[in-house]
Amino acid sequence: MGDALKEGELFAAVDLGSNSFHMVVARHLLGQLRTVDRLRETVRMANGLDAEGGLTGEAMARALDCLSRLGQRVRTLPDNRVRVIATNTVRQLRNPQGFLVPAETALGHRIEVVSGREEARLIYLGVAHGHPTAPRKRRLVMDIGGGSTEFIIGMGDLPIERESLQMGCIASTRRFFAHGKLSKKRWKEALTEVSAEFQQFAAAYRSTGWQETFGSSGSIKAIGEILTEMKLSRGVITEPALKKLRDTLLEFDGVDDIRLPGLSEDRRPIIAGAILVLEAAFNELGIQRMQVAQTAMREGILIDMLGRASDRDPRDASIAALAKRYDVDLAQAQRVEQTVLALFEQVAERCGLGEEERDQLVWAARVHELGLSIAHSQYHRHGAYLLRHSDIAGFSTQDQQILATLVRCHRREISRNAISAIPERDAQSTLQSLVLLRLAVLLHRSHDPSPPPAMELAIDGGSVRLTLPAGWLDAHPLTRSDLDAEREYLAPFGLLLHIETR
Amino acid sequence: MGDALKEGELFAAVDLGSNSFHMVVARHLLGQLRTVDRLRETVRMANGLDAEGGLTGEAMARALDCLSRLGQRVRTLPDNRVRVIATNTVRQLRNPQGFLVPAETALGHRIEVVSGREEARLIYLGVAHGHPTAPRKRRLVMDIGGGSTEFIIGMGDLPIERESLQMGCIASTRRFFAHGKLSKKRWKEALTEVSAEFQQFAAAYRSTGWQETFGSSGSIKAIGEILTEMKLSRGVITEPALKKLRDTLLEFDGVDDIRLPGLSEDRRPIIAGAILVLEAAFNELGIQRMQVAQTAMREGILIDMLGRASDRDPRDASIAALAKRYDVDLAQAQRVEQTVLALFEQVAERCGLGEEERDQLVWAARVHELGLSIAHSQYHRHGAYLLRHSDIAGFSTQDQQILATLVRCHRREISRNAISAIPERDAQSTLQSLVLLRLAVLLHRSHDPSPPPAMELAIDGGSVRLTLPAGWLDAHPLTRSDLDAEREYLAPFGLLLHIETR
Repeated sequence: MGDALKEGELFAAVDLGSNSFHMVVARHLLGQLRTVDRLRETVRMANGLDAEGGLTGEAMARALDCLSRLGQRVRTLPDNRVRVIATNTVRQLRNPQGFLVPAETALGHRIEVVSGREEARLIYLGVAHGHPTAPRKRRLVMDIGGGSTEFIIGMGDLPIERESLQMGCIASTRRFFAHGKLSKKRWKEALTEVSAEFQQFAAAYRSTGWQETFGSSGSIKAIGEILTEMKLSRGVITEPALKKLRDTLLEFDGVDDIRLPGLSEDRRPIIAGAILVLEAAFNELGIQRMQVAQTAMREGILIDMLGRASDRDPRDASIAALAKRYDVDLAQAQRVEQTVLALFEQVAERCGLGEEERDQLVWAARVHELGLSIAHSQYHRHGAYLLRHSDIAGFSTQDQQILATLVRCHRREISRNAISAIPERDAQSTLQSLVLLRLAVLLHRSHDPSPPPAMELAIDGGSVRLTLPAGWLDAHPLTRSDLDAEREYLAPFGLLLHIETR
Repeated sequence: MGDALKEGELFAAVDLGSNSFHMVVARHLLGQLRTVDRLRETVRMANGLDAEGGLTGEAMARALDCLSRLGQRVRTLPDNRVRVIATNTVRQLRNPQGFLVPAETALGHRIEVVSGREEARLIYLGVAHGHPTAPRKRRLVMDIGGGSTEFIIGMGDLPIERESLQMGCIASTRRFFAHGKLSKKRWKEALTEVSAEFQQFAAAYRSTGWQETFGSSGSIKAIGEILTEMKLSRGVITEPALKKLRDTLLEFDGVDDIRLPGLSEDRRPIIAGAILVLEAAFNELGIQRMQVAQTAMREGILIDMLGRASDRDPRDASIAALAKRYDVDLAQAQRVEQTVLALFEQVAERCGLGEEERDQLVWAARVHELGLSIAHSQYHRHGAYLLRHSDIAGFSTQDQQILATLVRCHRREISRNAISAIPERDAQSTLQSLVLLRLAVLLHRSHDPSPPPAMELAIDGGSVRLTLPAGWLDAHPLTRSDLDAEREYLAPFGLLLHIETR
């Protein structure tokens, strides 16, 4: 998937974190990415999140301001060379569209919301590429964000275990030190609560094991710098140094009084939460020594984009893995894929369907029968459930929603609820893609290897015109009755199916 | 699972079909089941089903009348020696409890509603045991019921493919010959519609292939008898004989006029639908010759019960297969199982929990982490989804609902919706089982192999008293904070958790 990569092309990655927004622009040269521009702004979006998933006007304004500045830099780059990822705070919004629509306008590009585990994958990718290690060594990577903290064990480029905890430096500082007071007693209680979050995975992580530990976030960098300034360690965070820093921290009466060498103004309000989460991680995972990584998620996004633009799109591998796990009938999937692509080529230009819709259709064809592994009855629903809820590497939550909708509606009645849950700008193209997928599935319903008839498809507004060879339908009465039913299924969506012969 | 099998014990199977109710009573002798009693009544429940899933008072009365007669025979047998299965018509009821509650009272035993594929499994089991074939031969078994038709390919005792189509002899006769008229044109149209239902699986079945074909229902038996009387074939149904029968049938003007040698009054109103479905099956699956089986689902139910009562409960195998398919951490599942059983033994008598609840708890412990294969976040919901919708051999839909509820509610907040969806008579025991499962999971939350503390549990009405060794909680502050949270989770259900030390 993806088009050819050109020498000298620019790529940009934007990370809309809960604490800060990052942008990195790189040039593709000799198969590598050379950084040509970087920008970081503290936006602290997580501070504007309320318990009901609302975002304060102030936080929204800060975010949009920053995005319009970033937009100036990346607006003119082509869409498939810019990837913008939003993480924990946007994940928690009750109405993400309320933020995403103005944010995309300000930035001039689409924003993808990713799950915690996809975030973890991208972080690992960034750290692994920035810090190559010996080939058979496992490493633990930890990233303390504003709203969540990720833990990944991996080897080489490959993440093995990925966890994302709902617990970042902003959230923890707000939760445990909301009144600004610091005390040993409060710290101990907070540590117990934070440690509880590790129970679910700490034993599994310890039993997998690792030889090197990296920390990749701004918070961990800041802690590394403080330790260097305090001459407690240099470029690494050791367990004794961290304990000493914690003791020093608890000598201050409150969060506002914290003064530590090397600590910026900017980071003062959230450093207590970061040290708390880091201490819990050292305790629960038995970490003795952590290297401070210079690369992070934004580099991971770039590497991933480079993969997408090559002939090894990581999303193809994820879809293949899903199909394998759930024993999809690959021959049938391939027949549907070929037919859907043939139909796509005939209508794409007229319908304004692009590369993105083509990819979605191909993936949907490959996994449309996924749910059969659960049960035959209602299998389209089961497949949609799996696609919506599974952790699918490389896919944003919006991608997964569209894929799930294509599979949910690939046969029988088209669910009006599923269609109306799609963001408005994608609703029309999803419906058109759906017509192609449904026709391809219908024509291959008998699951036999006989090729479909030569056909022509034209979509023009609400008219869907399928032309088949004369006599073909007479020889295939079942397909004729399915096409009659299809007319009824499409009609409520303003689509008129005409079957013609030539 | 299950208690020891005694020589001479009686077993009874009751099949509440959409057309007729069947009962068979058998005595266990020398590892075999010897039939000692049989009963069949035409109830034609499917005729009382309306489009909205309601059941007419007349059909309900016919069913309850028959059940009270059957009840006289089986009421005194112990619960675990009687299995009553309801199929397609009950599956389609909008409010199944409205039928099941009075029906169970009339019969004196619980009634299990099973899915079409579970029905297919039991049919195959009955036919396979009644008609042994050469060891490496595959056979196709077909059963035309009143409301649905099952198709199974199997080898020896083992079903390989199972399908259930929403299309039986009553439903088909009502749908296609509602006005009582028979004609070649109408027949051809009906055949196209029925054949369309085969598209989804016919190619897969043909490619799996089989060497022998059996038909096991009353309808197929009746067709076999007509063919014998008409001297068209003997004990088997051949393709040319079936076509001749169809031609003879279409010479009658209407359904009420049908007179065929060997056809009972009783079966006249539904024979047209049965011949239609059978002809479609012969066409679409390429059947040339079908043997008429003397055994059917009721024998399958008996064989299955015998398995449950032995040390090879087929449900254990199904749960193990699920755990394997979704990569469950078996060591953790076993730890939770052991602890939940230890807790169960301490409270079962007082709470009135029996063998059934014990089995459910063991299975829930074995698969409580099933959903982790989909995603870590909300995995209890994903596990519940899989348990509710998967085809799990040996389980009724009610069993699956309880199992899904235990898994859905094994951690975090207890879903009031999930609990209130459980039929009333099981609600209390499910809640008590849930307390045991939740405590077991909580005590093993760290997923490490260290044994749980010695503990005593007492449940008395709304009081849940857990006694732990003195000092244990001080050494396990995370468990203490989890138990504090657990108190909050249980309180809304009128359960007061007390933690004590000794």
